[in-house]
Amino acid sequence: MNAAVGEKTYEQVCAEVVRFYARHVQLMDEGRAEETAATFTEDGTMVSPPKISTPIVGRTTLAAGLRANADQLSADGIRYRRCYSTILVEVRADGSIFAKSYVQVVRTERGKGSYLHAMCVCEDVLVRVDGELLVAERVVTRDDEIV
Amino acid sequence: MNAAVGEKTYEQVCAEVVRFYARHVQLMDEGRAEETAATFTEDGTMVSPPKISTPIVGRTTLAAGLRANADQLSADGIRYRRCYSTILVEVRADGSIFAKSYVQVVRTERGKGSYLHAMCVCEDVLVRVDGELLVAERVVTRDDEIV
Amino acid sequence: MNAAVGEKTYEQVCAEVVRFYARHVQLMDEGRAEETAATFTEDGTMVSPPKISTPIVGRTTLAAGLRANADQLSADGIRYRRCYSTILVEVRADGSIFAKSYVQVVRTERGKGSYLHAMCVCEDVLVRVDGELLVAERVVTRDDEIV
Repeated sequence: MNAAVGEKTYEQVCAEVVRFYARHVQLMDEGRAEETAATFTEDGTMVSPPKISTPIVGRTTLAAGLRANADQLSADGIRYRRCYSTILVEVRADGSIFAKSYVQVVRTERGKGSYLHAMCVCEDVLVRVDGELLVAERVVTRDDEIV
Repeated sequence: MNAAVGEKTYEQVCAEVVRFYARHVQLMDEGRAEETAATFTEDGTMVSPPKISTPIVGRTTLAAGLRANADQLSADGIRYRRCYSTILVEVRADGSIFAKSYVQVVRTERGKGSYLHAMCVCEDVLVRVDGELLVAERVVTRDDEIV
Repeated sequence: MNAAVGEKTYEQVCAEVVRFYARHVQLMDEGRAEETAATFTEDGTMVSPPKISTPIVGRTTLAAGLRANADQLSADGIRYRRCYSTILVEVRADGSIFAKSYVQVVRTERGKGSYLHAMCVCEDVLVRVDGELLVAERVVTRDDEIV
């Protein structure tokens, strides 16, 4: 645990990962689609079986999907908050980071209060590009689709 | 991320901020009103639009409000837990810290189980006084009041 | 906060504790009973008043209980996720660690979606054995049983 990871210690990497998710998730939940897409690598992938079983590939495609989604939610008066917790951080030999998080997705609809929409697990491979962590590969699963 | 903040590294500041919220929130949720008020600066402010649109100012006023609230909840057999997650920590040039957190407020009522009461976002300016982090300014918003 | 704890700094200990819980909880929630039991000390104890008022003592007994529970949940198509947040970490003079966490227990049942099952507080004494953190004593309380 004291060993440096590249030039970074484990606690430095953890602080970075926690910071990454906080910023990434708040951008996504606030509908800032293009900035969210920029937190993926250029050829980043996202898959969410069984619903999205063919990976979405690349920042441009991700940005378009995020934008369409954000506009729809805004029009419908719906807000999602992805509450990340219990984040397991593992540094791999190649310097990439595997992070497995619990995500409580809370939905708020105008006039209907807030409730737990889905319990998800998010498994990411994060890589460092020009000093910044980015999502290279994401797999999201919903407990109610796999139990 | 490696750069020292004042004399502290980013990961030191993050560990402090996480510790601050854990202690602060557990004091609040356990009805320890005066100790909670002491985690604000002497002239600390709290606002929660639209319900509390005029800021509550100062430790004494905060303590009185927290005490009245805690006593009422205790009499009614109600417990709130403010589950902080997804905490974004930014250190500002003046040494203060901006922290933006997701807060799932869970309510438990005697004989009625626990449920999500509100999904909130808490935006704080934290400052250091005699080495201790304190809340100088707080803005809390509820998603169901702003969507 | 800068002071070393044994040979570790506070932020190192915090990173370790957060890592411990992420791994421990994910093992438990995935039904890996024996690996979960191995994250307790040989004579580790667990109590959850009022339901479990007599402590469960020892890794072997814990493993048996966890295994029976995991098998039953699997047969019933139920998944629990224990979302840990707001973790207060205190290092004691004897080198042990007191950690007090909020735990939102989310339950997912086949065909019934996910919902908040219980709001718990988990109070652990963690000790270091051969360099690894382990639970020596655990007390879990449910808000709906103590309000």
